[in-house]
Amino acid sequence: MYRSVQCLVMTYFLWYVFISQKAYQEIETRPESSVYTEMRGVGLLTDTVMDVVEYVRPSEGGDVISAILRREVTHDQIQGVCAEDISLPSAWCTSDSDCVAGEVDFDGNGQRTGLCVPYYNHPTNKTCQIKSWCPIEKYAAIREPPLVAAENFTVFIKNSIHFPKFKVLRTNILKRKRYLNRCTYNEKNLDCPNFRLGYIAEQAGVKFSELCEIGGIIGVFINWKCDFDLNPSDCKPNYSFRPMNIYKNSPDPGYDYRFAKFYSKDGNDSRTLIRAYGIRLDIIVHGEAGKFSIIPTIINMVAAISSVGICSIICDWVLLTFIDKNEVYSQKMFDEISEEKVEGTIQMTSTEQLTITTFGSTHSDLSEGVAL
Amino acid sequence: MYRSVQCLVMTYFLWYVFISQKAYQEIETRPESSVYTEMRGVGLLTDTVMDVVEYVRPSEGGDVISAILRREVTHDQIQGVCAEDISLPSAWCTSDSDCVAGEVDFDGNGQRTGLCVPYYNHPTNKTCQIKSWCPIEKYAAIREPPLVAAENFTVFIKNSIHFPKFKVLRTNILKRKRYLNRCTYNEKNLDCPNFRLGYIAEQAGVKFSELCEIGGIIGVFINWKCDFDLNPSDCKPNYSFRPMNIYKNSPDPGYDYRFAKFYSKDGNDSRTLIRAYGIRLDIIVHGEAGKFSIIPTIINMVAAISSVGICSIICDWVLLTFIDKNEVYSQKMFDEISEEKVEGTIQMTSTEQLTITTFGSTHSDLSEGVAL
Amino acid sequence: MYRSVQCLVMTYFLWYVFISQKAYQEIETRPESSVYTEMRGVGLLTDTVMDVVEYVRPSEGGDVISAILRREVTHDQIQGVCAEDISLPSAWCTSDSDCVAGEVDFDGNGQRTGLCVPYYNHPTNKTCQIKSWCPIEKYAAIREPPLVAAENFTVFIKNSIHFPKFKVLRTNILKRKRYLNRCTYNEKNLDCPNFRLGYIAEQAGVKFSELCEIGGIIGVFINWKCDFDLNPSDCKPNYSFRPMNIYKNSPDPGYDYRFAKFYSKDGNDSRTLIRAYGIRLDIIVHGEAGKFSIIPTIINMVAAISSVGICSIICDWVLLTFIDKNEVYSQKMFDEISEEKVEGTIQMTSTEQLTITTFGSTHSDLSEGVAL
Repeated sequence: MYRSVQCLVMTYFLWYVFISQKAYQEIETRPESSVYTEMRGVGLLTDTVMDVVEYVRPSEGGDVISAILRREVTHDQIQGVCAEDISLPSAWCTSDSDCVAGEVDFDGNGQRTGLCVPYYNHPTNKTCQIKSWCPIEKYAAIREPPLVAAENFTVFIKNSIHFPKFKVLRTNILKRKRYLNRCTYNEKNLDCPNFRLGYIAEQAGVKFSELCEIGGIIGVFINWKCDFDLNPSDCKPNYSFRPMNIYKNSPDPGYDYRFAKFYSKDGNDSRTLIRAYGIRLDIIVHGEAGKFSIIPTIINMVAAISSVGICSIICDWVLLTFIDKNEVYSQKMFDEISEEKVEGTIQMTSTEQLTITTFGSTHSDLSEGVAL
Repeated sequence: MYRSVQCLVMTYFLWYVFISQKAYQEIETRPESSVYTEMRGVGLLTDTVMDVVEYVRPSEGGDVISAILRREVTHDQIQGVCAEDISLPSAWCTSDSDCVAGEVDFDGNGQRTGLCVPYYNHPTNKTCQIKSWCPIEKYAAIREPPLVAAENFTVFIKNSIHFPKFKVLRTNILKRKRYLNRCTYNEKNLDCPNFRLGYIAEQAGVKFSELCEIGGIIGVFINWKCDFDLNPSDCKPNYSFRPMNIYKNSPDPGYDYRFAKFYSKDGNDSRTLIRAYGIRLDIIVHGEAGKFSIIPTIINMVAAISSVGICSIICDWVLLTFIDKNEVYSQKMFDEISEEKVEGTIQMTSTEQLTITTFGSTHSDLSEGVAL
Repeated sequence: MYRSVQCLVMTYFLWYVFISQKAYQEIETRPESSVYTEMRGVGLLTDTVMDVVEYVRPSEGGDVISAILRREVTHDQIQGVCAEDISLPSAWCTSDSDCVAGEVDFDGNGQRTGLCVPYYNHPTNKTCQIKSWCPIEKYAAIREPPLVAAENFTVFIKNSIHFPKFKVLRTNILKRKRYLNRCTYNEKNLDCPNFRLGYIAEQAGVKFSELCEIGGIIGVFINWKCDFDLNPSDCKPNYSFRPMNIYKNSPDPGYDYRFAKFYSKDGNDSRTLIRAYGIRLDIIVHGEAGKFSIIPTIINMVAAISSVGICSIICDWVLLTFIDKNEVYSQKMFDEISEEKVEGTIQMTSTEQLTITTFGSTHSDLSEGVAL
């Protein structure tokens, strides 16, 4: 039983620590990474052609990139005065005295002028007049249909990674330009860095129609796990996809933001306000590489041997304390040790053996002590 | 004394390593995090209404977001020729021979044409004429008053976090949409993800008036410290705020940047150049989670027991070396060990005891050696 | 020989672990970092003056910043119908029947109208007509010469770093504003945070002319290695530069992106499409700080002593197993131990000695066992 416990511990160490955990390797977990992204594809939104310049923001191709899937557009806003949003109860009024000039409602769109005016084309409903970008978005925004063609748009992701400790540089661009221009990533093309937006959504478990409706943030994880004791060129990334804002039961799902295009019309500044719902991709790179090194090997060897030694002590103590009463094991152990003494030098064929004997000798001393 | 040292070491390990440091847990320190930010609020800058589209840059709602608090606007710049900045001594001239055509001054605004011209409306001062966006910013920029209303603007920060090792997903959006739309974060509303800009500045120890003047970068730290042995839903983030560019005695404080709005007027490209001073928020997420695991428990147990053993050796050695001379402790120790020998099996009631005895036996051997 | 191995191990530990690795220090490897960047310089691109507002994107001064070095500009695009790109074989046609109305080619620029039209000024070549931003980029883009003056543009990098564990704040802005405005970083000015783009490219081993042609991403590494046992103000950053997308033999080198400036001309929206080739700088901050702490000192001491003990066992075992046969060492060792016994208390002058003797006693027990 004693031996079997030792065996188990030793096997565990050899297998778990050295084989499975690669404890003989020096590990680097924080590589330097650079991501470049580029979207491809063109689609029609009612009558407007949407190309990358229109639907990709920001345009510089960094590690966070978003594609607009649906827009709510407020055309030709100018700085002026108009009626406040009617969905805001505090803006309702019946006469000018309800509206305090100069007041700014936090949830509103501008500063009150002090007048109470009809709400655009609703002659019976009145709200306070405000100084603002007019007309206000809530009233004038035109909801466009989603850009369903975007499901087939692709995002090209180039990732270069550098392990400074091992001085190894790797990239996910493995094949020729010709191949890169045509391929699409899927189970059969794991080397292709072009990802269909529809595929990404599907893998993340998100419906594309839902993305078109409320938007969403999806994490694209690039995972490098490299063993530089083998051929470094075998080190290839692994991709996975996960929704990054919790969908189910979330009180604030989706992803949207506002921006504007500014124009100068007839000497006046005007703008087209766009509320964009879209898919944002956060490219997150994890990297880990290992290579044989003498220092961790020694440290882990020492730890392993220590563990075995201490394990022996614990085993001894457990057996002696709990089984002692019927004096079976205790007696056997002492006998065994006496025999061991005779065969001492011969049996020391492994380090663990030696350790046991070391501690074993203690007990034999005790028996001697009694003998004396 | 000997026993008390052992006790101390043991207590230390049990308390410090296992209770305080949670050494029995497997730890994950690099969770996957996604941040979405959105500013809210509207204010008046002299006569211009500033809404999110005007003062937030970049607009995409990532983990770095800035709000413009003050602007220096140069309207209607066009590509042409005009006088160089008079604050640049190298641009001063009295005749055309002082200006070398084609030269570009590094600190200047364009390429010299070779003429020496009056500095705008100053008939007596002359500078070299340059090809540039005219008029130059230094001369024509209009300093606007600060957007003091921004102190009450809020930033909504949504943070989702995922611990891949434990497969736990958490978000800082805990309550209902209704609550989220109304609340503001403070000591009493730690679950609310809407932060007043004025509150953030105050917590970071920065005066808002100073931010309006020169701008500044403030770090918003979201700290997750989770114990998944307890209920994962108890895992809530903790927020803190710190100025990220050193204020006091810094030779280059503040935060500002330049951008432009481009127009086409009468067939000519023109632009409005804006130098924006503002508050930039860098949202930085730290996460750490632990969960019981058998491997680190064993490893730390082994380390603890080893330490106690080695501690015993050191104690022995210290006592033997320094107190030996009057032979009091030394004698006592050997006596004790002799007694121990007799009671050998009985006294082995704790692992540490066993270890001591092990090394103790050495000394008894020595005395025996003398006896023989 | 035995002693020399021990000496070696001990020396290794004292030197490697304590002096070289600073094992007595508590280490913090993930400091909070904030980066602010600002480009400076102005240049002429044929007839157009390029200042920071024109060539820097994004403008907000974060840790990723790019400068446009070359542009391919497509002026005055409007939404309309025109001929598809002739470099696309699938767009070639001889009659309208070759073009399916409503079809969108993935690599194309828009949706087919069903007509087959002459390719702009090539009366003999015909391609399918598409609804798109017209004219298409492939046909109408004007390739501008590179902005060679950019080699002398500088980027000012301000980095503030905070070690929360040690509560130390550091910045790379060490000198006075006067100095900062004039200096340029080089081997003699390591404290200056203004970097010439040409210098960065050179240090990264990239030709600036190549950057102007195809663009490129360069990593700017700021490395902080601080020892807070010394004066914290001695803690200064170290800069290094590395190309982040692999150049040689890469199937997709370079860095480029597309953006547009939007105009409103005669009531119609138009845009100027710009394909920008440039240099992107990814500022990557690494920080590590150490300070004396009692906990790691104890832990490493314990580990060191354990190692020496185990080393002794291994040494013994190696010698006994392999050299035993000619019984020289074995005999010597036993003799030595017998002598040691007599001098027992005296010779225990160091902890290691004690450990050796401990395990040594085992063998003496064995010889005694034989003797009995």
